[in-house]
Amino acid sequence: MTSTPGRQRPTINDVAEQAGVSRGTVSRVLNGGRWVSPDAKAAVDAAIKKTGYRVNPHARSLATNRTGSVAFLLTEDHQQLFEDPNFSALLKGAAAALADSDMSLVLIMAGSAAEQKRAVAYIEAGHVDGVLLVSAHSGQRLLADIVGSGVPAIACGIPLGYQKRMGYVAADDEEGAREMVAHLRSLGRRRIATIAGPLDTPGGVTRLEGYRAELGEDLDEALVRHGDYGRASGEAAMRDLLAAEPDVDAVFAANDRMAAGALDALADAGRRVPEDVAVGGFDDSSIAESTSPALTTMRQPFDRISSEMVRLLLQLIDGQKPAAITLPTELVRRATT
Amino acid sequence: MTSTPGRQRPTINDVAEQAGVSRGTVSRVLNGGRWVSPDAKAAVDAAIKKTGYRVNPHARSLATNRTGSVAFLLTEDHQQLFEDPNFSALLKGAAAALADSDMSLVLIMAGSAAEQKRAVAYIEAGHVDGVLLVSAHSGQRLLADIVGSGVPAIACGIPLGYQKRMGYVAADDEEGAREMVAHLRSLGRRRIATIAGPLDTPGGVTRLEGYRAELGEDLDEALVRHGDYGRASGEAAMRDLLAAEPDVDAVFAANDRMAAGALDALADAGRRVPEDVAVGGFDDSSIAESTSPALTTMRQPFDRISSEMVRLLLQLIDGQKPAAITLPTELVRRATT
Repeated sequence: MTSTPGRQRPTINDVAEQAGVSRGTVSRVLNGGRWVSPDAKAAVDAAIKKTGYRVNPHARSLATNRTGSVAFLLTEDHQQLFEDPNFSALLKGAAAALADSDMSLVLIMAGSAAEQKRAVAYIEAGHVDGVLLVSAHSGQRLLADIVGSGVPAIACGIPLGYQKRMGYVAADDEEGAREMVAHLRSLGRRRIATIAGPLDTPGGVTRLEGYRAELGEDLDEALVRHGDYGRASGEAAMRDLLAAEPDVDAVFAANDRMAAGALDALADAGRRVPEDVAVGGFDDSSIAESTSPALTTMRQPFDRISSEMVRLLLQLIDGQKPAAITLPTELVRRATT
Repeated sequence: MTSTPGRQRPTINDVAEQAGVSRGTVSRVLNGGRWVSPDAKAAVDAAIKKTGYRVNPHARSLATNRTGSVAFLLTEDHQQLFEDPNFSALLKGAAAALADSDMSLVLIMAGSAAEQKRAVAYIEAGHVDGVLLVSAHSGQRLLADIVGSGVPAIACGIPLGYQKRMGYVAADDEEGAREMVAHLRSLGRRRIATIAGPLDTPGGVTRLEGYRAELGEDLDEALVRHGDYGRASGEAAMRDLLAAEPDVDAVFAANDRMAAGALDALADAGRRVPEDVAVGGFDDSSIAESTSPALTTMRQPFDRISSEMVRLLLQLIDGQKPAAITLPTELVRRATT
């Protein structure tokens, strides 16, 4: 039990050599013995005794209380990661921000209710130190489960219904929507429609609120449509608007993919953009530069959103209180307005 | 210690209700007390005593010995997941195959040596039940670490140097390369070059072996170039080939992205494809249909590779011996030959 001055403390390598097993086997014995044969365990136990090895208490505490990893929980199916450029932008940003802090990022994609249940069980069992919750549709059930689990978590966007109990980083959706509508009005447009996102998403709710607030008494609910953030839903909504409200002269879509769908419908209908109908999106995702004409949109600061999410999460893991950050969006004018 | 017939055993929900805490808190106390305040822990302990709750030994064993998750370890940086369509195809296939088995898939991207070290530590600490190892460059160090960790693992492609110690699922690279070279010869081509992949990758080594074997005594090593699987490297290699060996009349690239780069160089040089130079790739990834002209290539059965990887891994987790599977590739002839 005493250490001899001038003599090195035995290390895990000494134990492994003495036992004739790998360093990994020793590590597994020290961490509870998973995947270790009884013979190997006996050899390691004997070697620990013989070498006088003692676990470094700091390393031990790290090994048992921290996993050194953070989950990027994407509550969408795998296809969306590749189809929606916002998610890949956030993932890259989070990985870059975490790289500095010596933590791993594990990506869990859970689109279905069953997958979300498994993901929560995994997180609750302590396999990650915290969660970056990235989702278009933050189901109430998932939010309740994550909050209930007590695991540190930071949401991307306002966690509707849980904003007092979960920290988050969000773009200022309402102000961004107001700015886009004000921009369309400044161009002389008077029949400004919107294609809102789903109402179980913060962007769906809040961008619609901004649209309504900015129009004030000029608001005409007949010009409001809803989509699911996918391109096809924007196209369908625009077709419907053109049929029902042929004097529409501008449309604000709650994301760039639906705006791209609206452009498809306008091209099919032979309406000129922006001369007949001006179009504004939201996100400034990679799609905005590739539409024809190139899309005017509100830029979300994805790099800053992901790095602030990581910063808040690491603070939370270190025992600080959760914080909420709202970041401004910026009008990027291209050829559709 | 005795159970009363006709009376329900107390459940974790009874404990939670009695303690006035969530089910998740009870679960965390039972699993070692992470993220539980001392007060909550005391309340749960008291409630366990009062309700007479006993942990279901089966559930307990599952909770402590299985995480219900499998890692998809991609030893590339995040960018590659979005740039190389092979990886997204494998990821989607693995997720689909796992969905049937009630297991979660966690994706870990580890491109740098530091990230790989952290990933191995995470895996070794028991946070996943097994590993699907997906990599172009299987560094010897990483393979040694994964094999040494004793965690069940199945590689995608032959784990060079560890094929006796790690199960894998691979396409028949050598036979595929031979078939492509035979196809080019059947078109009358006599100066058939190759752009091989990196020699620390199974596809780099084995497709080059197939090229050499099929050419036999017609082999001319002056027609061999190497790339890094990226498009730019294929373009550079083709440029170099055209300068050094202007009579080249066909090229076999070890993946589709390098073949696309070779097509770029040929277009720049004003060589007609396939009239002047025929081009064959390998993978039949999404890029093969979008090149101009569309690319003739060897199709890798990605869906089958990923589902077989999952099947072998689940067998391994269940205690069976590791197996190796080699799957045939198929010539897909398009417009470059």
